[in-house]
Amino acid sequence: MVLVRPQLGENIGKAARAMLNFGLTEMRLVAPRDGWPNPAAGPAASGADQVLEQAQVFDTLAEAIADCPNVYATTVRKRGVTKPVVTPEVAARKVHAGPGRSAILFGPERSGLETDDVAVAREIITVPINPEFGSLNLAQAVILVAYEWSKGVALAQPPEVDLPEPAAQEDLDGMIAQLDGMLVDANFFYPPDRTVATRRTLRTLLTKPGWSSQEVRTLRGVLSALAGAKRKKEPRQK
Amino acid sequence: MVLVRPQLGENIGKAARAMLNFGLTEMRLVAPRDGWPNPAAGPAASGADQVLEQAQVFDTLAEAIADCPNVYATTVRKRGVTKPVVTPEVAARKVHAGPGRSAILFGPERSGLETDDVAVAREIITVPINPEFGSLNLAQAVILVAYEWSKGVALAQPPEVDLPEPAAQEDLDGMIAQLDGMLVDANFFYPPDRTVATRRTLRTLLTKPGWSSQEVRTLRGVLSALAGAKRKKEPRQK
Repeated sequence: MVLVRPQLGENIGKAARAMLNFGLTEMRLVAPRDGWPNPAAGPAASGADQVLEQAQVFDTLAEAIADCPNVYATTVRKRGVTKPVVTPEVAARKVHAGPGRSAILFGPERSGLETDDVAVAREIITVPINPEFGSLNLAQAVILVAYEWSKGVALAQPPEVDLPEPAAQEDLDGMIAQLDGMLVDANFFYPPDRTVATRRTLRTLLTKPGWSSQEVRTLRGVLSALAGAKRKKEPRQK
Repeated sequence: MVLVRPQLGENIGKAARAMLNFGLTEMRLVAPRDGWPNPAAGPAASGADQVLEQAQVFDTLAEAIADCPNVYATTVRKRGVTKPVVTPEVAARKVHAGPGRSAILFGPERSGLETDDVAVAREIITVPINPEFGSLNLAQAVILVAYEWSKGVALAQPPEVDLPEPAAQEDLDGMIAQLDGMLVDANFFYPPDRTVATRRTLRTLLTKPGWSSQEVRTLRGVLSALAGAKRKKEPRQK
């Protein structure tokens, strides 16, 4: 990630935080306006100090990207541009696919990259944005590009959670049978010629959640409680 | 986008800005800590006032999501979670695919969503993040989810730029012939048995860029200039 003539130290810090969230640690700074190091950067980095400490500073963009055969310029301005324009998603795939190191250029907060900066890039990255309200700040542009990049990296695999397996069919059948018995007792299945369809509807509905064995046990407890309550109630009614 | 018990007005404003960048305008607030409206929200929204003006406020999460059959909770905490965990990308696809409105829940800045908040969601959204440095703030979480959502929307198609077509083959051949003549004159093709291979290498190299007609014309001008310089020089050497 190459920040070209960044203005505020705070934004450099925020960019560092955005990068480290997605596992990127190599930041390069081209002619930061207020010099380097900048005391405002650290607090804004919220702990991403290692990115700031390792940041390399260059006088010119050419020096900053000298070792990078693949250069992408982020910009929203498309006036007179005659380079391919890609989304962060497509750029990330190319960065991972291609041989050689890649540099992503981000311009100064106020004005963005100049035409001469864009000229050194092979392709342009533009975030597809609301045409009536495009207001991405530097750290937001960095985080979106870093986020897309991270999708291609092992560390960023989606988290896995072991969900409980659905209960065995016989467990579910046992619960359905218990309910069914209660419903028969309650004269639920009426009229009789609709009984088959109603049972099918119930089974579909109860199969859908994929309840675990534990959940089925809990529900059987609920049913038993309801049946018990009814049994307790009935003697009184008699 | 449902902000549950947000703390700072500034962060509500930043979230509004993040949303509008990607075409999302409907924000709901559940029990904002400092009341609503909040004077700190407007300046932080950087022009996304329409989102703040239309924001609806609810006392409880249940009321805020009453009309949304699809509820997603954003959280990084996976302790004791027994719900499916998806990435923002997968969630966005589901939001677009499914019938019914979707609500995405974001917790308070400091603590995130409580277990009871997460319980109402059908699925959990977790941004796959650097396991050694996870430090996404509220607006960043909102922007990543909004960005993924926008990919499924027409307004967010990647920008198109009409790149100039590569020059016609005869134009390129004309340029290569011009160069070749100059190289023959310069005794470049030596030793003779390598000439065919060298010519092929050159043609490959010159075909690769896909130069436009205009670019080829420019290069022919360069070659002509070089040839002219050489011609001018030669008489002097004689």
